[in-house]
Amino acid sequence: MENQKDQDEVYMRKALVEAEAARAAGEIPVGAVVVCDGRVIARAHNLTETLCDVTAHAEMQAITAAANALGGKYLNGCTLYVTIEPCAMCAGAIGWAQLKRIVYGAGDEKRGYRQFAPQALHPKATVTGGVLADECRALMQQFFQERR
Amino acid sequence: MENQKDQDEVYMRKALVEAEAARAAGEIPVGAVVVCDGRVIARAHNLTETLCDVTAHAEMQAITAAANALGGKYLNGCTLYVTIEPCAMCAGAIGWAQLKRIVYGAGDEKRGYRQFAPQALHPKATVTGGVLADECRALMQQFFQERR
Repeated sequence: MENQKDQDEVYMRKALVEAEAARAAGEIPVGAVVVCDGRVIARAHNLTETLCDVTAHAEMQAITAAANALGGKYLNGCTLYVTIEPCAMCAGAIGWAQLKRIVYGAGDEKRGYRQFAPQALHPKATVTGGVLADECRALMQQFFQERR
Repeated sequence: MENQKDQDEVYMRKALVEAEAARAAGEIPVGAVVVCDGRVIARAHNLTETLCDVTAHAEMQAITAAANALGGKYLNGCTLYVTIEPCAMCAGAIGWAQLKRIVYGAGDEKRGYRQFAPQALHPKATVTGGVLADECRALMQQFFQERR
């Protein structure tokens, strides 16, 4: 069996594929997947421009899709992988969904939940940050540099 | 011209109509409307059970619908009326939408944004709480009492 770090990187690569898809669509490149019992049950990327909807963050759509896949709105047994630290909105949704494990790539000093909503997650949730952080961050930096 | 307090109560009554619709559907009774230039451009109520989706709070749907109505994702010129103090998730969405005025009915000591995400709103947003608070709260209390 792989160790947790290797496994986290495998799933983060799937989230990165989603982030790439966002970039290809002209969206801020953030991707997310939800994993349950070793299976990816939801994949999503940021669609705020395409949908003209500030709530269409990768995590929000991944949570909605995962609940749909499971047929229940709570995701207690699942892990969310997302390329960038969730914002306050997404952290709130993660809390409501009772997700117990969150793995993110690069931190977000400007809008990340750690600063704006540090208690929004479920009290029993564990968080792992920094997985493939350089790759996750590079996608974002490249996106914003191209738009300057 | 009506004064602001009267006007706020008029729109909060429309949000209360939405909250009643939520209750009738077996949902936690929270309703919201978005007002732009004196016109209601979105109405929504909590649909978390119906949609099996923790993100389907009244405010989230109202923000999505209002952006749709306006054809732009920012709601700078709009006011959001909601019967219960927004949670961290909804406050985050309100912040992303750049809503500059938020009016809520009853406070939410357990999950309200003032405790969990006090800085999630836009820095220039003004907030008015306590509009028709007793009616907004009574709907909630009645709902939970019936379920005990």
